[in-house]
Amino acid sequence: MTMAQQSGRLFVIGVGPGDPDLMTLKAVRLIERAEVIAYPATESGLSRARRTAADHVTTAHIEIAYSLPMSVDPGPAQAAYDDVSQRLREELDAGKCVALLCEGDPLFYGSAAYVYERLCQDYETEIVPAVTSLTACAAAAGKPLASRNDVVKVLPAPLHETRLRAELSAASSVAIVKVGRHFEKVYRVVDAAGLLDRAILIAQATDSGQCIRAMKDVAPGSQDYFSTILIDVRE
Amino acid sequence: MTMAQQSGRLFVIGVGPGDPDLMTLKAVRLIERAEVIAYPATESGLSRARRTAADHVTTAHIEIAYSLPMSVDPGPAQAAYDDVSQRLREELDAGKCVALLCEGDPLFYGSAAYVYERLCQDYETEIVPAVTSLTACAAAAGKPLASRNDVVKVLPAPLHETRLRAELSAASSVAIVKVGRHFEKVYRVVDAAGLLDRAILIAQATDSGQCIRAMKDVAPGSQDYFSTILIDVRE
Repeated sequence: MTMAQQSGRLFVIGVGPGDPDLMTLKAVRLIERAEVIAYPATESGLSRARRTAADHVTTAHIEIAYSLPMSVDPGPAQAAYDDVSQRLREELDAGKCVALLCEGDPLFYGSAAYVYERLCQDYETEIVPAVTSLTACAAAAGKPLASRNDVVKVLPAPLHETRLRAELSAASSVAIVKVGRHFEKVYRVVDAAGLLDRAILIAQATDSGQCIRAMKDVAPGSQDYFSTILIDVRE
Repeated sequence: MTMAQQSGRLFVIGVGPGDPDLMTLKAVRLIERAEVIAYPATESGLSRARRTAADHVTTAHIEIAYSLPMSVDPGPAQAAYDDVSQRLREELDAGKCVALLCEGDPLFYGSAAYVYERLCQDYETEIVPAVTSLTACAAAAGKPLASRNDVVKVLPAPLHETRLRAELSAASSVAIVKVGRHFEKVYRVVDAAGLLDRAILIAQATDSGQCIRAMKDVAPGSQDYFSTILIDVRE
């Protein structure tokens, strides 16, 4: 009879908004300690999370890149989460520590949450929070996101136009995330609310491609997926 | 005629939610580079921001602690911001780099924003975003704050009961911040909305005093000022 091997630990690690310097000490420490690193990547192998953490990845790491289908139908994505979770189980069952990297914060619109939910019951897991694009954008723009008793709302741009309009009407500070191909719809809503002069579009905050513009100066058309609009509704 | 001395730079640095390990690489680097560190402290000299950054403060640093009057009337606080800004001007004019530390993120309900506003026109300034209590609490509780097209609302507990009630009615995910002495009011609002079973109270997330409880199990009375309530309103 052999002793059961002890399972490895799962670290779900936010690497922050893009600037490698905005990773936390804890993220770096746990990546360096892990034997396996996993991260989402495009079909052609590009990974923003991997790129942010690159200085801390060594040849000793086993790397697992997984791709997520971009689809409105959640079915294919769920299957992809099942697949990567199964792959990570193999490493964890073999006693290895696994660092699952994700852009931004794992629990703030992060896809890593779906993998976490599949594994957290069976393995010792730690979630490492990170700087979100929300405050990274505010810092880049030099504008307070909230003070005193401000109500902050985070609105995903894919929401229906009427819902966006309703939410915009009662807030102190609004962040519209996942702007991407929804820019023209959001522009209409913000314009109709009379808030165009108060809106700033920030693309790729803290990353090398960072670009900050007044929303009223932005030409129609799609924007970078990693674009956020901050609107200061306060008087 | 003498050459004008070059002014120092101002770094406005978020040190995150309390765990020193959740500071960013950038925060640490700039604190170590600065000649002066400034931070808010109580009258008796206690400072949460200073404590979080303690491992990176050396005897070579000039330390400036400033206290902020806890008052509903903004007058005394404004005078305190004027005073500390004037003190920092002296160091900046002498060519010194100043790191202004703050708990959490500087632009997310941070008091450092008021000092920043007083100095940013006259000195080269950089704001360093940080992990907020929002995602630190979600990580501590192991509950996604937002996914897909969830609307996230951040509501300060001092808001009027009717406002809190109205905001709670249309959101996917709610974070109530600055709970402190407003706990009983918030409890009534959450209970009336039928959301008590979905609410978690997190005190001092990531700090040594961290405490996570189901809201329905918390006895009436004031809570720690650094308490946050997360409510998952999703079906």
